[in-house]
Amino acid sequence: MEKLKNKNMKNCIFCKIIKEEIPCYKIYEDDLVLAFLDINPIARGHTLIIPKEHKENIFEIDSIVLERIVSVAKKIAEKMKINGAEGVNLYHASGLSAEQTVFHFHLHVIPRTKGDGISFVSAGQAKAIEKTEFEEILSKLKID
Amino acid sequence: MEKLKNKNMKNCIFCKIIKEEIPCYKIYEDDLVLAFLDINPIARGHTLIIPKEHKENIFEIDSIVLERIVSVAKKIAEKMKINGAEGVNLYHASGLSAEQTVFHFHLHVIPRTKGDGISFVSAGQAKAIEKTEFEEILSKLKID
Repeated sequence: MEKLKNKNMKNCIFCKIIKEEIPCYKIYEDDLVLAFLDINPIARGHTLIIPKEHKENIFEIDSIVLERIVSVAKKIAEKMKINGAEGVNLYHASGLSAEQTVFHFHLHVIPRTKGDGISFVSAGQAKAIEKTEFEEILSKLKID
Repeated sequence: MEKLKNKNMKNCIFCKIIKEEIPCYKIYEDDLVLAFLDINPIARGHTLIIPKEHKENIFEIDSIVLERIVSVAKKIAEKMKINGAEGVNLYHASGLSAEQTVFHFHLHVIPRTKGDGISFVSAGQAKAIEKTEFEEILSKLKID
């Protein structure tokens, strides 16, 4: 625990939750991750999953921890479904430009029901892209 | 491959991409997953990652495949950053009520830059929830 504490950030609100300096409604905890109810939920049951060790974003987090987070997200999604959710969204932001507000990695799990007034779809408009531009993007992003 | 084909759905557009009946701009492929550029991107580089075996949503997909998808998402996010993205969003929808449109599991990886006009944040409004209601939700969603 001492080792973990040292890796946490003094003024990070999520690190304070991990250290139990700030209370939370805890959904799940293991050696690597913590899941708790978002205190400003966009839907009832809106949950955040975070790594216990302070990592700012997807670039910093270890793959093994990210994998654990998404496995836990699946379990929580299943619990949500049992309790009346018709669907689920996963959402994550890395970086100020991506609208990240708390700079400790977190994955949102959001239970959805018909007519709940939430919409992610209208958030972005499709951009028309030419074939040559697709090919240029592809050459940059392709992973061998 | 024959075994895989049998597990694919005849009229699923993503299964057709996997079977190469429909072309795609392929970013990454391995034994379990395929990543390709979204043909209707909300940002240049907008990528989808899908399981090769047809699974409709987060409830159906195997954890091991979901973990692979998120590991690949991290790699793609890193490539995006190298190529000028300041941040990245991950987004996923399971279920019609969650605004899922293609019923083959997919994770969106969206590169972000300042002032790109995309916004996920405004999509949902925070709901005021009383302590007792938080506790009721917690009792339903808690994973032991």
